[in-house]
Amino acid sequence: MSKGLPKRADDYSAWYNELVKKADLAENSAVRGCMVIKPYGYSIWEKMQAALDKMFKDTGHSNAYFPLFIPKSYMSREADHVDGFAKECAVVTHYRLKNNADGSGIEVDPAAKLEEELIVRPTSETVIWNTYKNWIQSYRDLPILVNQWANVVRWEMRTRLFLRTAEFLWQEGHTAHATKEEAVEETLKILRIYATFAEQFMGVPVLRGVKTESERFAGAVDTYCIEALMQDGKALQAGTSHFLGQNFAKAFDVKFADKEGKLDLVWGTSWGVSTRLLGGLIMAHSDDNGLVLPPKLAPIQVVIVPIVKDKSQYEMIDEKLDPIIGKMKSRGISVHYDKRDTHKPGWKFAEYELKGVPIRLAIGPRDLENNTVEVARRDTLEKETIGIDTIDQVVEEMLEEIQHSIFDKALKFRERNTTEVDSYDDFKQILEEKGGFIKAHWDGTPETEDLIKNETKATVRCILLDEKEEDGKCVYSGRPSRKKVVFAKAY
Amino acid sequence: MSKGLPKRADDYSAWYNELVKKADLAENSAVRGCMVIKPYGYSIWEKMQAALDKMFKDTGHSNAYFPLFIPKSYMSREADHVDGFAKECAVVTHYRLKNNADGSGIEVDPAAKLEEELIVRPTSETVIWNTYKNWIQSYRDLPILVNQWANVVRWEMRTRLFLRTAEFLWQEGHTAHATKEEAVEETLKILRIYATFAEQFMGVPVLRGVKTESERFAGAVDTYCIEALMQDGKALQAGTSHFLGQNFAKAFDVKFADKEGKLDLVWGTSWGVSTRLLGGLIMAHSDDNGLVLPPKLAPIQVVIVPIVKDKSQYEMIDEKLDPIIGKMKSRGISVHYDKRDTHKPGWKFAEYELKGVPIRLAIGPRDLENNTVEVARRDTLEKETIGIDTIDQVVEEMLEEIQHSIFDKALKFRERNTTEVDSYDDFKQILEEKGGFIKAHWDGTPETEDLIKNETKATVRCILLDEKEEDGKCVYSGRPSRKKVVFAKAY
Repeated sequence: MSKGLPKRADDYSAWYNELVKKADLAENSAVRGCMVIKPYGYSIWEKMQAALDKMFKDTGHSNAYFPLFIPKSYMSREADHVDGFAKECAVVTHYRLKNNADGSGIEVDPAAKLEEELIVRPTSETVIWNTYKNWIQSYRDLPILVNQWANVVRWEMRTRLFLRTAEFLWQEGHTAHATKEEAVEETLKILRIYATFAEQFMGVPVLRGVKTESERFAGAVDTYCIEALMQDGKALQAGTSHFLGQNFAKAFDVKFADKEGKLDLVWGTSWGVSTRLLGGLIMAHSDDNGLVLPPKLAPIQVVIVPIVKDKSQYEMIDEKLDPIIGKMKSRGISVHYDKRDTHKPGWKFAEYELKGVPIRLAIGPRDLENNTVEVARRDTLEKETIGIDTIDQVVEEMLEEIQHSIFDKALKFRERNTTEVDSYDDFKQILEEKGGFIKAHWDGTPETEDLIKNETKATVRCILLDEKEEDGKCVYSGRPSRKKVVFAKAY
Repeated sequence: MSKGLPKRADDYSAWYNELVKKADLAENSAVRGCMVIKPYGYSIWEKMQAALDKMFKDTGHSNAYFPLFIPKSYMSREADHVDGFAKECAVVTHYRLKNNADGSGIEVDPAAKLEEELIVRPTSETVIWNTYKNWIQSYRDLPILVNQWANVVRWEMRTRLFLRTAEFLWQEGHTAHATKEEAVEETLKILRIYATFAEQFMGVPVLRGVKTESERFAGAVDTYCIEALMQDGKALQAGTSHFLGQNFAKAFDVKFADKEGKLDLVWGTSWGVSTRLLGGLIMAHSDDNGLVLPPKLAPIQVVIVPIVKDKSQYEMIDEKLDPIIGKMKSRGISVHYDKRDTHKPGWKFAEYELKGVPIRLAIGPRDLENNTVEVARRDTLEKETIGIDTIDQVVEEMLEEIQHSIFDKALKFRERNTTEVDSYDDFKQILEEKGGFIKAHWDGTPETEDLIKNETKATVRCILLDEKEEDGKCVYSGRPSRKKVVFAKAY
């Protein structure tokens, strides 16, 4: 197959767009801003879901499902929330269509106008806290640890597959607690889960931090985040966990009686990751040959391509491979044996490279004679020929090695592309010439943040949770600062 | 806990509604016709999803995701489809809200009117076949075997939790084939999967049949279905599998080149089951004490309730139970040990009975002395005291026994409530006095079907796939008939 993939160095953006399409991950639909997630892309999402869902359940969370629609008035209940979410959204105004008078098609039936418009959920805090009001009477009803896997819609003007789409899939956790401490602890627990998932499953190192006021979730007291660095030096917010304080409890009048019978507002959190993670996964590891997938999220971990001169050899190869495939499967490795005779081996090599299958095994007539197999690693493109009898063990170890190796590579990249600066000139120069994360002192005001953003397009990605305190001066205003923060241009 | 559950014999409908709420399965939301699926109800749905998803994948299907929104014009492309689905639906007309002039809230921004209205998908044939057009060029691209797990919206005027809601969750399979034979085979394969799932997992016996023309899916050539009988003698359509012929391929111009390069329209199927299955599950088995769940779909299969006089006994019970719980878990049994000291054992007994946990173990001071445990079966309400050392094995066997037993009970119920009649008087009398499935000759015309429906509310549920041919006369019109068909009042 001809890949026709642009090179990252030439046009990173075009490379990304083409890769998403050519690797059969997703495509734009006929509906503006909405994507079709194709089977191969969706199977990666399913692996992400399975890993995250297990982590949520292991920490006591249950799944539930809340309505797609939110009454318009709900959005106005929390003052900050309405500004953040109620504006660019899909609004349902009618509940019926009827045939055109001229029979040419269908039209909205003006008689079927809703009394109150419904908003397709951009996020579900309002409808969920309105529900929690009925679930919570006393401290015995707390905590509520609920998550939902759902689709949400935000009417984005400029969309890109996975990274920013009008409709996307995500999970949104919504928890309710009796104390502030417990809610904060929950917020941070989820941040740790997100970071563990990003690093151990996606192989993507992430910074753990807290957002500045201007980047905070609309309605939150604090927004914690994980931030990843892409190969083009831009940051990607990969997950957020919000400490909501009592804001939504106040807006929806959700109170509980404590052990002494005293009424108090409930404390809340919310947190989410979305199909955007797929965009981050692609951009963090992949190369000019196509996708590079971490073994833990690869739908196919090992592909086997037979190389035969005539069809009679298939039988011998089958006989040789049968027990080998069995041994790999019993080690929990997902193996695909591609026997199609409609495509040549070279075409298959290119296809599986494009699709990021971590290990490719090729077996031909000489391998049959020598009892060997050719092993190719997708991440390093290294090939070696080894004995077939121990191939299951070799493959298992190699999958682990690849998982670690792509994380290490991404970590080294981030380290090389994280720069501390002490002046605004350096700040601008590094941003322009090198990109990446820039650590700099900032005076803590939204005004300075805004000015820097307008001049450079860089935003404060986060204030690191473990950032050391030190005396410094804001690179922009010169005013005193106690901590460096992390700037970057971001997706 | 006080159950306050109406009795089935007094008011079946009220019993159902109350049970759904009291067993924490679902509740109505503030949005008309949309439900909140609560964690306990959702966990049953997750078990259903897992079992079905595995069966779909084992037969070569993959999951994907298509847009929530469908452009209005798509609905008119297939002539029958538009009549069936485009009328009562949620219509998105605007994509922005703005602040009211008087600052009292938000309102639809008239400037943000969509050029073409979007319909929230009631089913996805149109948007998917529009996508398949680009995926299919030649026979090599076929078959496409895709499924999606999604939410859909149909603006129902009268809604009931799970059974008929404006928004519901489902899976919808959409496949494309090169030949009619292959598409028909796929349709029937899925029907077998649905029937197997209903009988072996839900414990609900189902009839397998084909729908009459008037009950057919809008746009299908043939609709196959599984039909279950509820305890009140009404039928529930539990799943449908549609042979679409070339209807959607024609509507969306989806053609493929065969091996000789000749262009032909693609053949299609679609099939779905939804959260409606939860309604069927509840109504098929549950009793006046609450839910009865089949072990294969029960989120908790075994609950253990300790009975202690003072807290010191907890330690002894823990010590005794620890290895027992371990042994049950290693057999793959899901066990919940309810140690809460905020609730009395009697309260817990009632709660788990209400929630349909198949087996309850109770252990008290006398059991500790005698090395025994009390085992209670939810389905039969039988109790016995047995030795604790072999309890894991006893429980495993009992779970299997319960799974079969509730199916057998439901099957016997259906057999008792299936009546063959040869006259319209008998038909009406049986329907009135006994209900259930009625097998009767019918002349095959939609007119007769309609007249019977209007007079009795009974519809033809299906024509059984294995119904024997015989000479007969339509019970209504007296015209000749070659097969009996199955009538019932239905949900």
